[in-house]
Amino acid sequence: MDKQYVVGVDMGGTNTVFGIVDARGNVLSKSAVKTSTHMDVNLYIDDIYNELIKLIDDVGGISKIKGIGVGAPNGNFYTGNIEFAPNLNWKGVIPFAKLMSEKFSVPAVLTNDANAAAIGEMTYGAARGMKNFIMITLGTGVGSGIVIDGKLVYGHDGFAGELGHTCSVRYNGRLCGCGRTGCLEAYASANGVARTAREIMETSKEESLLRNIPAESITSKDVHDAAVQGDKVALEIFEYTGKILGEALSDFVAFSAPEAFILFGGLTKAGDYILKPIVEHMEKNLLALWQGKIKVLFSDLKEADAAVLGASALAWEI
Amino acid sequence: MDKQYVVGVDMGGTNTVFGIVDARGNVLSKSAVKTSTHMDVNLYIDDIYNELIKLIDDVGGISKIKGIGVGAPNGNFYTGNIEFAPNLNWKGVIPFAKLMSEKFSVPAVLTNDANAAAIGEMTYGAARGMKNFIMITLGTGVGSGIVIDGKLVYGHDGFAGELGHTCSVRYNGRLCGCGRTGCLEAYASANGVARTAREIMETSKEESLLRNIPAESITSKDVHDAAVQGDKVALEIFEYTGKILGEALSDFVAFSAPEAFILFGGLTKAGDYILKPIVEHMEKNLLALWQGKIKVLFSDLKEADAAVLGASALAWEI
Repeated sequence: MDKQYVVGVDMGGTNTVFGIVDARGNVLSKSAVKTSTHMDVNLYIDDIYNELIKLIDDVGGISKIKGIGVGAPNGNFYTGNIEFAPNLNWKGVIPFAKLMSEKFSVPAVLTNDANAAAIGEMTYGAARGMKNFIMITLGTGVGSGIVIDGKLVYGHDGFAGELGHTCSVRYNGRLCGCGRTGCLEAYASANGVARTAREIMETSKEESLLRNIPAESITSKDVHDAAVQGDKVALEIFEYTGKILGEALSDFVAFSAPEAFILFGGLTKAGDYILKPIVEHMEKNLLALWQGKIKVLFSDLKEADAAVLGASALAWEI
Repeated sequence: MDKQYVVGVDMGGTNTVFGIVDARGNVLSKSAVKTSTHMDVNLYIDDIYNELIKLIDDVGGISKIKGIGVGAPNGNFYTGNIEFAPNLNWKGVIPFAKLMSEKFSVPAVLTNDANAAAIGEMTYGAARGMKNFIMITLGTGVGSGIVIDGKLVYGHDGFAGELGHTCSVRYNGRLCGCGRTGCLEAYASANGVARTAREIMETSKEESLLRNIPAESITSKDVHDAAVQGDKVALEIFEYTGKILGEALSDFVAFSAPEAFILFGGLTKAGDYILKPIVEHMEKNLLALWQGKIKVLFSDLKEADAAVLGASALAWEI
């Protein structure tokens, strides 16, 4: 095979990580540039080019590269554009796939990060062999990528799969970053967990290791570390978060009847502490016909590589 | 074209209606048998056969028939089975498509009634030319058929698209027929509307034409007729129902980003009285990127024919 590698680019609001990936999902090399320091997208692409071309040359030059896959905030697969991304410097519509393709003279394709993660799981990870699954990324935000019949769901406009912003998780619930209330993201994101921690500590008199940490900086890892030591507040935080997430998953099952959910991100580090309440409450809320049939799995991709792998997987399908 | 007709069979809990349909969606002839009187599915099929074969003979015999499409409660497209339908006499798993195919010596295919309705809209109705839409049937129950990229979503097991049983419409809300609480069906079904009528009349002192009707038998049509005369209670019932339905639709948009919703069934007879609050509250709850972009349409198929047309449309794809 001549074109035996793909490039994955994971664009975050702060940093952009990219790497060369082979067909078995090995990340051969990786590098990064700053996203947030560039006000001009062309200078940002120059910056990526200067770093990435070294990695490409190391594997035999651009002729070895099948294409470039990009996972980007508000990335639209159909158009290759980044459209009105609130957390990037470049406003409006940026034809990012086209710019990358012109710069590197190989095809480039783009989607949002959670969709890229789903394709990564299907190509290299926990969803290999699955035709119907839903990827949920639990990070700063809550993202999702939905796969039906082996294909990612993009919807009529390219923006399908915003399950973090289903809002009926709690009617008139917490204010979400999107400006609406009761979104899943307001409960199951990193911020959501920290907020749950604060709420529980404010309303309970229970002693907790978490009281030693400034409330606004509590992470899922802190909650996990406390839970391991039997901390009741920590366990209650996971129970509350898992209940809301499990109930949300049961509604998603009613939509597309997936074989499995693949969960990825900070919250999954809590292992069974979060998995057990998720599964318990999902099962409790499923229609009888689905009880005991839907798997909930954690991603088994190395966290440091997962986003680059996911983005790169897109490029195999060019 | 030799095989120029299809047969549509719409199986309800009480009656089964069937007809011969041409490629343009004309129902050439129609007949019906009782469903509920047959304890033996084979005798039920004999009954259908005896009626249906007359219609088939009238159009030139079985050689003119491409196939039979069946819309049935708990119908599984993948297996052709009716599986554990609570409202039918035949318990367990009934290989209905196989039995029909053997009886008539033509291919037969089966799905649930809401999925059949979605295919009917795509083939003959308001969704012609659409690749991404969601059909919502508002009747005794609330059913749904989801179309993505021009294909019906069946999920990993054949049972996807149970949006009437998404349960986070109201947290710990009304008890639903499925045994869980807060399902969309408990609010937007015929029963749900009657229940809303009762609740509003119990808690308000407002005069209403609906107070002249026994509470348990209030229909969407009664509410509509009262609304036309400016009845405040009736208007409040539509506002409440439309709000819940509109909020639910906005969550469904976050899933598959459909071009349109197609609504069908009793509630749509209320026209703008129900459409306006649905659209208003859907818009209010959509992420900004979807505001003003998602259509909400009523089915334009003749109600008496829609179910047979939907079932028949399945048979074109055999």
